[in-house]
Amino acid sequence: MTTDSPWLAQGEAKRQSILDAIPAKWRLADPAPPATELRDVTGSYIQQYLSEREIEITESDAVDIAAQTTTGRWSAVEVTEAFCHRAALAHQLVSCLHEIFFDAAIEDAKKLDAYFAEHKGPIGPLHGLPVSLKDQFHVKGVETTMGYVGWIGTFQGKKNDHRFRTEESELVRELRNLGAVLYCKTSVPATLMAGETVNNIIGYTWNPKNRLLSCGGSSGGEGALIALRGSPAGFGTDIGGSVRIPAGFNYLYGLRPSSGRMPYQGAANSMDGQSTILSVIGPLAPTARSLTLLFKAVLSQQPWYHDPLVLELPWRDTVVEETRSWIEQAKAGKSTLAFGIMHWDGIARVHPPIARGLRIVEQTLKRLGHKVVPWSPPSHAIAGTLGHQAFNMDGGADLKHHFSLSGESKAAQIIINDGESISMTELAALNVAKREYQKQYMDYWNSTAELTGTGRPVDGLFCPLAPHAAVIPNEYHYVGYTSFVNVLDYTSVAVPVTFADKNVDVRSADAESAEHVEWKYHADTYHGAPVGVQFVGRRLQEEKMLTLTEYLGDEITKTVGAQ
Amino acid sequence: MTTDSPWLAQGEAKRQSILDAIPAKWRLADPAPPATELRDVTGSYIQQYLSEREIEITESDAVDIAAQTTTGRWSAVEVTEAFCHRAALAHQLVSCLHEIFFDAAIEDAKKLDAYFAEHKGPIGPLHGLPVSLKDQFHVKGVETTMGYVGWIGTFQGKKNDHRFRTEESELVRELRNLGAVLYCKTSVPATLMAGETVNNIIGYTWNPKNRLLSCGGSSGGEGALIALRGSPAGFGTDIGGSVRIPAGFNYLYGLRPSSGRMPYQGAANSMDGQSTILSVIGPLAPTARSLTLLFKAVLSQQPWYHDPLVLELPWRDTVVEETRSWIEQAKAGKSTLAFGIMHWDGIARVHPPIARGLRIVEQTLKRLGHKVVPWSPPSHAIAGTLGHQAFNMDGGADLKHHFSLSGESKAAQIIINDGESISMTELAALNVAKREYQKQYMDYWNSTAELTGTGRPVDGLFCPLAPHAAVIPNEYHYVGYTSFVNVLDYTSVAVPVTFADKNVDVRSADAESAEHVEWKYHADTYHGAPVGVQFVGRRLQEEKMLTLTEYLGDEITKTVGAQ
Repeated sequence: MTTDSPWLAQGEAKRQSILDAIPAKWRLADPAPPATELRDVTGSYIQQYLSEREIEITESDAVDIAAQTTTGRWSAVEVTEAFCHRAALAHQLVSCLHEIFFDAAIEDAKKLDAYFAEHKGPIGPLHGLPVSLKDQFHVKGVETTMGYVGWIGTFQGKKNDHRFRTEESELVRELRNLGAVLYCKTSVPATLMAGETVNNIIGYTWNPKNRLLSCGGSSGGEGALIALRGSPAGFGTDIGGSVRIPAGFNYLYGLRPSSGRMPYQGAANSMDGQSTILSVIGPLAPTARSLTLLFKAVLSQQPWYHDPLVLELPWRDTVVEETRSWIEQAKAGKSTLAFGIMHWDGIARVHPPIARGLRIVEQTLKRLGHKVVPWSPPSHAIAGTLGHQAFNMDGGADLKHHFSLSGESKAAQIIINDGESISMTELAALNVAKREYQKQYMDYWNSTAELTGTGRPVDGLFCPLAPHAAVIPNEYHYVGYTSFVNVLDYTSVAVPVTFADKNVDVRSADAESAEHVEWKYHADTYHGAPVGVQFVGRRLQEEKMLTLTEYLGDEITKTVGAQ
Repeated sequence: MTTDSPWLAQGEAKRQSILDAIPAKWRLADPAPPATELRDVTGSYIQQYLSEREIEITESDAVDIAAQTTTGRWSAVEVTEAFCHRAALAHQLVSCLHEIFFDAAIEDAKKLDAYFAEHKGPIGPLHGLPVSLKDQFHVKGVETTMGYVGWIGTFQGKKNDHRFRTEESELVRELRNLGAVLYCKTSVPATLMAGETVNNIIGYTWNPKNRLLSCGGSSGGEGALIALRGSPAGFGTDIGGSVRIPAGFNYLYGLRPSSGRMPYQGAANSMDGQSTILSVIGPLAPTARSLTLLFKAVLSQQPWYHDPLVLELPWRDTVVEETRSWIEQAKAGKSTLAFGIMHWDGIARVHPPIARGLRIVEQTLKRLGHKVVPWSPPSHAIAGTLGHQAFNMDGGADLKHHFSLSGESKAAQIIINDGESISMTELAALNVAKREYQKQYMDYWNSTAELTGTGRPVDGLFCPLAPHAAVIPNEYHYVGYTSFVNVLDYTSVAVPVTFADKNVDVRSADAESAEHVEWKYHADTYHGAPVGVQFVGRRLQEEKMLTLTEYLGDEITKTVGAQ
């Protein structure tokens, strides 16, 4: 630390203050063994610090917890304390939190318990459920750094702004209405534009299943925290894969809804006002039904009356019912469901664990009698270019400004280049090119109606969400598997499948000879990393995709279990 | 005409070719008397050229016509010929057409009749209904100039483009599926960015009710044609008022839906790719129920599967039913409806006929027992600035390019300035400012729940749509009454109320003394001009607003009739 780099000290002080917010009783006396000796700190490793009761609570999913807390069987305080404890442990193991406000959470939980006692019922469908938040959401009494040292002690980098520690984002307001308990905010890469989570405050957030690897990004703290069951469910954001990547890298489900469903109003963001590809909010959780619980609960708050970018589109039960009727028909042996599978996109070869994950999915779909259609879409290279141009339209001006506030260094993993801003005429051309690509993809999707035999186009598309199962630090070179969905603005769900296995996932001769881009696959390093895939649906089809995910996720797990 | 200005000859040749497309039997032997002698060419004036049967057909509204043509009582050919005839007359009276393709229309009508004969039923809900189109929609076999001389003989200004005369816009494809007959395209101001309709091809489109005045713009040809009943209904587009202005100026209803409902895919546009304020498609017609017919019919084609910007939001009958139940309660003397009224926006004083129009509306609402709430919104000056910045973001580059194709002159009425393009950072700030304004307006709207006594905020807002009833050429100086709706992306319907009356609409002493902007009111010149107002609803509430408009439009007419 030199006087030339005061940001180092500022980051260090903030890092220490996060640790200091952990009650002494929950501090680890000894650090965990190095990752080279012990990769996986989930499961029995973290359980050693918890009581049986805490394990019972924190390893229940959000649906089961809410079933207990909304009926008064579990108190909000007990549940909140259990998750605070486990989140504190998680942070000490993989460095996944930016803000800790356990005291406020326990106060809130006490009020919820009092409410329940008085009214003999819950305040809302999430009564007493702890929910974690990516560090973009403003919570009263708590600061938001979004990983920037220059934001410490400010409101989004603005000093002496009356909104500092007084604002709440719209999503936070709605979660409180619903009865959720807020207790921590999770780590992100500064700028949010990276597939790993690294910044000059908390350092690097590691993958709890394999601490040699990244937890993903940019909602990486969410992924790591939930993987360790330090949270039953949380909200991230996704502009190029930032919900799906950490979900997939941590054996979680994660939803990237189409834009216009979840309220972004009043949340911090990067490149705010860039409207070619909008960042969206989505939930992450260990079970698909937890995503449904959270997504549906937020919609019940009618966010379209509080956020001008949200569409008046309530949760559509009719779509759920129709989708379930197709599932029932399939279970009765007469499937009318059909799915596309894209094993790779013609640009970036995937590592053997991902290829195997997709084979497991294909095997599952066929076992269930669903039609599987190979996917030959308009070139994903076009989507990749469009996404790159959109993210870089300001030549990196926004992020340069925020880094300059403290003078801090920029992590190598950030995908925004130093460059020239484009002109209005170039932007218009970009927006037209994006729309034309969306139209081509839409027409292609429609065209599959001729192949499915169901009278409809495919009901969803399975494809990789990254070339690798989690990733070796600094080895995330291709985000095209997730960002094409953002260009299209489609619904997409990250679905956990299996874990990388060095004994099974050996590199094939075929892959070796491929002339396509392929990055280092180290079977040993990746061993144990979660393998997630992506399940993509059409724009705004969140109800359908969540319903199908609940069904197919369980069936994929059965396939893996039977192997 | 000089060799320096070949565009004059090109425009003249195109103008003549439009007239030449009118069959000899439908050409007027004598021109109409000058406007100074005869302002109004609607009604009995145009009727003199038509048979009783033609008058019966062309003065039926779209709903009545469709009731006849979808049941085989009227043939598509007879209806089409009647409208072709009347459209030909309309064009000769006020210069409202850019393209005439009557022969193709009659061929299409013959096929529809044959279809009906064979299948004993209609091809769709618009079977045999002629529908006019603003000259932005591509129709096979027909060119699209959008008022630019430089587009003559090209595809959107591109020479030797294979799409020239071969493309059809998505809306056109859907209208054909629905059974509509397409027969003409209507005049626009080149650039579409004007409240009057003037270009170097057809010259100036006049207001049929008062030919001293403008028909409005930019969907001015639609307004004029439908006012003369040369079309029962048509589609325009609206980025700053371009559907509502010509509707209001021509005693018509016109809907500006929120963005994302009607398919713009494959239509020509100005400043395509400018995505801060999107132009939207909306219908114009003499009756409110005709708007509903067209809007609902297009949605039945599921445009969200064919246009990436359309939302998966089918026509919502449940909203119609709920709205109707409120109307029924009101009719039973227990109104639970409440409306805002904004008599002026604090920026531009309105002329006496418009002020009277709003008093008629207020009187109607009170007579019906509805709560009327005064409107004190966030400053509309902010909306005006945001709209101006959005429309001018490219410094006029797009329109300069298209004018330069022929070297033609730019009309004075066009609201885009020659200026500098803004930067990406400025654009981002503009997009954020727009969203913040939308949020403020939304919060204000919500806040009216405390004033209505209905438990809901106001169900709609009545306000001016322009400071004047139609407009004296070159006197349209303030589009803020319509453009604030585009900034907000709200649903808005132009509603006809009455006609300017020089004996009633005298300038008040109060208005004289006002220090606010006010433009010349010539009671005599404006005499007879239609007075329309605007009925604004929240974003994406088209079903509710159309249902309320059908009800309130009739009641407003009753109020006027009783005076």
